[in-house]
Amino acid sequence: MADPIDFYFDFSSPFGYFAATRLPGIAERHGRDIVWRPILLGLAFKITGVTALPLTPLKGDYARIDMERISRLWKIPFNVPSKLPIASQAPARITYWLESHKPDKKVPAIMALFHAFFVEDRDISDPEVAADVVASVSVNRDALLAATQAPEMKKRAHSETEAAIERGVFGSPFFIVDGEPFWGSDRLEQVDKWLETGGF
Amino acid sequence: MADPIDFYFDFSSPFGYFAATRLPGIAERHGRDIVWRPILLGLAFKITGVTALPLTPLKGDYARIDMERISRLWKIPFNVPSKLPIASQAPARITYWLESHKPDKKVPAIMALFHAFFVEDRDISDPEVAADVVASVSVNRDALLAATQAPEMKKRAHSETEAAIERGVFGSPFFIVDGEPFWGSDRLEQVDKWLETGGF
Repeated sequence: MADPIDFYFDFSSPFGYFAATRLPGIAERHGRDIVWRPILLGLAFKITGVTALPLTPLKGDYARIDMERISRLWKIPFNVPSKLPIASQAPARITYWLESHKPDKKVPAIMALFHAFFVEDRDISDPEVAADVVASVSVNRDALLAATQAPEMKKRAHSETEAAIERGVFGSPFFIVDGEPFWGSDRLEQVDKWLETGGF
Repeated sequence: MADPIDFYFDFSSPFGYFAATRLPGIAERHGRDIVWRPILLGLAFKITGVTALPLTPLKGDYARIDMERISRLWKIPFNVPSKLPIASQAPARITYWLESHKPDKKVPAIMALFHAFFVEDRDISDPEVAADVVASVSVNRDALLAATQAPEMKKRAHSETEAAIERGVFGSPFFIVDGEPFWGSDRLEQVDKWLETGGF
């Protein structure tokens, strides 16, 4: 089987959420697996000098229009969270803990976390909230809460981000397909075409 | 007739060039005129705190891959200029001078300037080069050279940029369609759909 698609995203990124709803269909159509890799975008911003989109003058106002418009166009349930951006350590650490301990729960947990934040406006940066959300996909809540504080999970979320930056990742969503980098949910059609044609 | 599409771009922007090659077909299909408005993006960057794309760590390297890939996908002649970004005052001032004095030469001049910079790697930030390029579409070269230094054209390029920022413009290309803002050549399909449906 061909190599999987590396899918990097930050749980605080609306465009990461949009991509998470569409990438699986594209990957499946081309017989590819996806490696889901939550990252801590703040670490990349230290290198690029970029400010989080919602906090950038002019751009932040436009981004809100743009994300709401895309959600309508793609028919994705979406409400701009009352707090944006948020710190994404807790959901990232939970995701990597699941990868090691309950791998079949990893993707359902990611989708539940995205839904809680971008549809129900629940603040998943709070470890208690993140644990509640993921407990709903049948994982033990205490284990999840412990994962948000576990030193090895703190280290893991960091090292995954550093490895991503090493590969040139600086934004969310970011896809690497057979070595080719694509940034942004608006590049999904190119990803689709790349998978179909093997490059253009 | 319906209102024209406001098309804002910086002559130093590869994605502005890509948009310039595709927007006319979209506008024509929907019976819309285009108002072509070169701006000086550096003034907007002072407000957003954004660094020019090619100079941003990580993002700049990706941008080069992205622009070359788009040029191949859309089959647009393109070579990454040896100097990028450049100051775009000279071509902007020439464009506004043509708008007032030779309006039928304005769009051919814009396309000739983009082609000179993004295909032939000629440095159109140099007033002499910009005047040479636009002289090729049958405008008097001395008048063009004078326009690059004329106080009223300096003022005009500035005030057009300030008016654009006032409307929320912060990047290139930027389109405003019946009051709706769209940023990026990757939003042209949405512009097309917006014109077709009247909004979504």
